Amino acid sequence: MSSTERQLHLNLFILNTGHHEASWRHRDTLPRQAADVHYYKRLAQTAERGLLDSLFLSDAYGLPPTIRYKVLQGLEPFTLLSALAVATERIGLIGTASTTYNEPFHIARKFASLDHISGGRTGWNIVTSTGNTTAFNFRDEGLPRHEERYERADEFVEVVRGLWDSWEDDALAVDKAAGIYVHPDRLHPLNHKGKFFAVRGPLNIPRPPQGHPLLVQAGASDTGKEFAAKVAEAVFTAQNTLEDGRLFYADLKSRMRKYGRQADQLKVLPGFCAIIGDTEAEAREREAELHGLTQAEYGVYRLSNLFKIDLSVYPLDGPLPYDALPETAEINSQKGRHQLYLDMARREGLTIRDLIMRTASSRGHYAIAGTPLQIADEMERWFRTGAADGFNLMPPYLPGGLDDFVDKVVPELQNRGLFRTEYTGLTLRDHYGLARPSWREYGREHASASRSFT
Amino acid sequence: MSSTERQLHLNLFILNTGHHEASWRHRDTLPRQAADVHYYKRLAQTAERGLLDSLFLSDAYGLPPTIRYKVLQGLEPFTLLSALAVATERIGLIGTASTTYNEPFHIARKFASLDHISGGRTGWNIVTSTGNTTAFNFRDEGLPRHEERYERADEFVEVVRGLWDSWEDDALAVDKAAGIYVHPDRLHPLNHKGKFFAVRGPLNIPRPPQGHPLLVQAGASDTGKEFAAKVAEAVFTAQNTLEDGRLFYADLKSRMRKYGRQADQLKVLPGFCAIIGDTEAEAREREAELHGLTQAEYGVYRLSNLFKIDLSVYPLDGPLPYDALPETAEINSQKGRHQLYLDMARREGLTIRDLIMRTASSRGHYAIAGTPLQIADEMERWFRTGAADGFNLMPPYLPGGLDDFVDKVVPELQNRGLFRTEYTGLTLRDHYGLARPSWREYGREHASASRSFT
Repeated sequence: MSSTERQLHLNLFILNTGHHEASWRHRDTLPRQAADVHYYKRLAQTAERGLLDSLFLSDAYGLPPTIRYKVLQGLEPFTLLSALAVATERIGLIGTASTTYNEPFHIARKFASLDHISGGRTGWNIVTSTGNTTAFNFRDEGLPRHEERYERADEFVEVVRGLWDSWEDDALAVDKAAGIYVHPDRLHPLNHKGKFFAVRGPLNIPRPPQGHPLLVQAGASDTGKEFAAKVAEAVFTAQNTLEDGRLFYADLKSRMRKYGRQADQLKVLPGFCAIIGDTEAEAREREAELHGLTQAEYGVYRLSNLFKIDLSVYPLDGPLPYDALPETAEINSQKGRHQLYLDMARREGLTIRDLIMRTASSRGHYAIAGTPLQIADEMERWFRTGAADGFNLMPPYLPGGLDDFVDKVVPELQNRGLFRTEYTGLTLRDHYGLARPSWREYGREHASASRSFT
Repeated sequence: MSSTERQLHLNLFILNTGHHEASWRHRDTLPRQAADVHYYKRLAQTAERGLLDSLFLSDAYGLPPTIRYKVLQGLEPFTLLSALAVATERIGLIGTASTTYNEPFHIARKFASLDHISGGRTGWNIVTSTGNTTAFNFRDEGLPRHEERYERADEFVEVVRGLWDSWEDDALAVDKAAGIYVHPDRLHPLNHKGKFFAVRGPLNIPRPPQGHPLLVQAGASDTGKEFAAKVAEAVFTAQNTLEDGRLFYADLKSRMRKYGRQADQLKVLPGFCAIIGDTEAEAREREAELHGLTQAEYGVYRLSNLFKIDLSVYPLDGPLPYDALPETAEINSQKGRHQLYLDMARREGLTIRDLIMRTASSRGHYAIAGTPLQIADEMERWFRTGAADGFNLMPPYLPGGLDDFVDKVVPELQNRGLFRTEYTGLTLRDHYGLARPSWREYGREHASASRSFT
C-alpha cells in the first residue's frame, strides 16, 4: 500500500465515562474519576498508542439541570489539554472554546500558549454556545440569537487569526550583544475595530509553531455549515445514515469554492459510535446492557429541552406530538440536532421511548454494534463512497470501548492500508495533511491597515 | 529545633530569564526558551528539590512597547501551570488572573480545574491590571479608574468564592445502581446579581480539593492593602528596606481585625532578590556584570511610563524633575510602585541613571548581593523582627540564580531551623499552614439567598 494513498483520519472524542448517556452506570466505568487527570492521561496515552490523529474535548459553561442523572462533563479544556500535552508526545489536542462568552485576545493567547507547550499539536473547536444554562452564568439575559452569535463568531475568528499573525515567524532576534530581543518591525499591531471587538494587539506570545492552531467546527445549521466552509479545517458532524453523510459531505465541500478553498483543505469527520464485540451477539449484548441502564426520565428531559416543549405530559410509548412541536426555523440553538432527531423519528416511526434509546448512545451520531471486521467494513464504506475523510470516534463507554477500538479495529484498518502504522509528522497539521498557514495567508485586509510596532 | 517552631515560607517568582531586566543578555541565560515548557519544567523541579512552598507566575494581557529591549514575559499562566502540575508532585502553583478583563465563571472554573489536576496545589494572584497596553486589547478605551477596578475586584472575588462553594464537599453520590450521580440538594446556585456581574451557577466542576485555592494579592495602594486585608491569604510586596518592611507588615496585619481575621491567616512575603556569590566580591562582580548589561534607553522608557512624563528630555545624570512629576494620588495604576520609587530617589538623592540601576535588578524589591551566609542572615533578620513571614524569591538570573539559592542558601536556612527539611503536607494550604475553608465559611449572604439545584 503506497504511503501517498488517501488514509483515514481518526479523532477521539473524550467525554468522561463515554458517549452512551448511561455509561457511567456500567460496572466497568469510573465516574468517580471524571475530574481526575490520571484518568484522562490514560485515555490520551491509549489513543496515542493507537496512532490516532487527535483527541478532542467538548465543553459548555454551565452545569446541566440533569446532572443528577448524568456524569460530569469533565475538567476545563485548556487546563486539561495542557496537562495532557506533557503526558503525550505526538497526538493532536483539540479543545472547545465559545466565541459568545470569551474575548478573542484570551482565546488567541491560550491556544498559542498550548501550541507552544505541545510543540504544535493543538486545534480549536469553535462553538457559539447553546442554551440558557450557559448564558445565565455570564449575563442576566438569555443566549443571543443564532444569527448574531455567528456574526460575532465570524469577527472573533478574524481577530484571533490576526493576533496569531501579529508576530512574523522570524520576529525573534535574541541578539544578546546588541541588546535586541525582537525585531520591532516584525511585530504588527492589529488595530481591529469591529462591531463586537476592539483589539489593538500584538499578541504577547510568538506565532504558534503551527502558524495557526487547527480550526475545527461542528455547526450543522445552514449558517453553521457556511461558517465551516469558510473557516474550518476539520468538521465534526452527526450523520445518522450513510446517505445523509454523503449529502452533507458533498454539500459542505461544494460551499468551500466561493471562499477560494480546495475541498481537501477541510476534513469531514462524522461521529462514529462503535459498540465492539468479538462476535456480533456479544456486541448486541453490550448494547442492550447499556440501553437497559438508560433512565427514561432523563431522556424525556433531554428531548423536552431540545424540542422546547414539555414531553413528560405525553405517553412514553406514543409518537412525538408533531403538531405541537416548534419548527426548526424557530429554534435558537442546536438547530442541526433538532432537525436530525425530527427526521429520524418521522422516518422510522419512533415513539418517544424509541427516540430516547436511539439517541442515548451517541446523541444522533451514527452508531453500530458489531465485530471489529464489521466496524472496519462500515468505516471503509463511508470513507470510499464520499461520506467521510475520517471519523470522530465516540466510544460508548470508557476506557474499555477505546481499548477495544485501539486493540481490535485499528489493526484491521492498518491491514487494509486505510490507517497509518506510525506517526510520520510532528504536528496536528502534519497528521491531518494540512499545510501550515504562512504569515498573513489569511486576513490580508488587516495587513494593509497595520503599521509596525515602534 | 521543634517542628512547631514558626518557619519561613518561600515562593519562587518565575519570570523568563530572571528578574534583572538585563538578565536575558547574560551569557548563562536562555532567552530563546522563554516560550519553551521544558525550560519552566526544569525551574519548577529545581524549586521542588529545594522544598519551596510554591512557584508563582505574574501576568499581563499585552505586549509592552519595550519588548525590543526585554525578553518575553513567558507563557500563559493557566496552560503553563497545568503542564507544571503534572511535572511536579508537591510544590504549590500560583497563577495571576485579572478581575478587570475576565469573567468570574471562567476564573472560578479554571482554578478549580487546576486545583483538581494538581491535587490541591493552586493559588490565585488577584490583580486589577495596569496600563493601557492591556486595556486596548479588550476595549476601545483605557484602563478603568483605580477605585472602580477594586470595586469590581471585590465583587469578582465574592462571586468566585460563591461558585467554589456551589457544590458541597460531599455532593457526589455516584450511585450506579440507583442512577444518582450527584445529590441535587447538595448543589447550590448562586443567583448573584450585582453591580458588575450576574452569575447564576452552580459551577460545572466539583468543589476544589483545597475548598478554595489560595487567594494571593499584591496591591500596594491604600485600597490595595485594604482589599488584601479583607481577602488575601498571602501577599507579595515590594519593600526596599527592613524598616519599610516592618511598617508594611504591621499596617497590613492590623487592618485584618475589622474583617474578623487573625494575623496568621495572611502570610506577608516581601520580594527578595539575592545575587549569590561564594565570596562577597564574587557576588558584587555578578551584580556589576548584570548592571553593565542594562540599557539606559529602556530604563528611561520604563520610568517615563511609571511617572507619566517623558524623562528622555532630562539629563540622565541629573535628578528627577520633581516639580514636573504628577502626585501619586493622580496616578491610576501601580500607585504603590510610584510612591516607592519616588521615596527611594528622594531619600538617597538618586539621579535618573541611579534610579534605573537601583530598580533594574528587582523593580524596587529588596535586593542583596552577598554570600549564602549573609543572605540567610538578612532573611532571618526580616523574619525575626516582624517584617516577613517568608519571601517571594526573585532570582536576578535563571536558572543559575535559582540553582545557587537551592543548593547554597536553603541548607543554611535548614541548619538554622528556619525552613523545612521535607514536605509534610500535600496541598499549597498545607505548606503555608493555612486551613482549608469549610463549605460556605465565606459569603454567608449568598447562602441565605440560594435554593438547592433541582
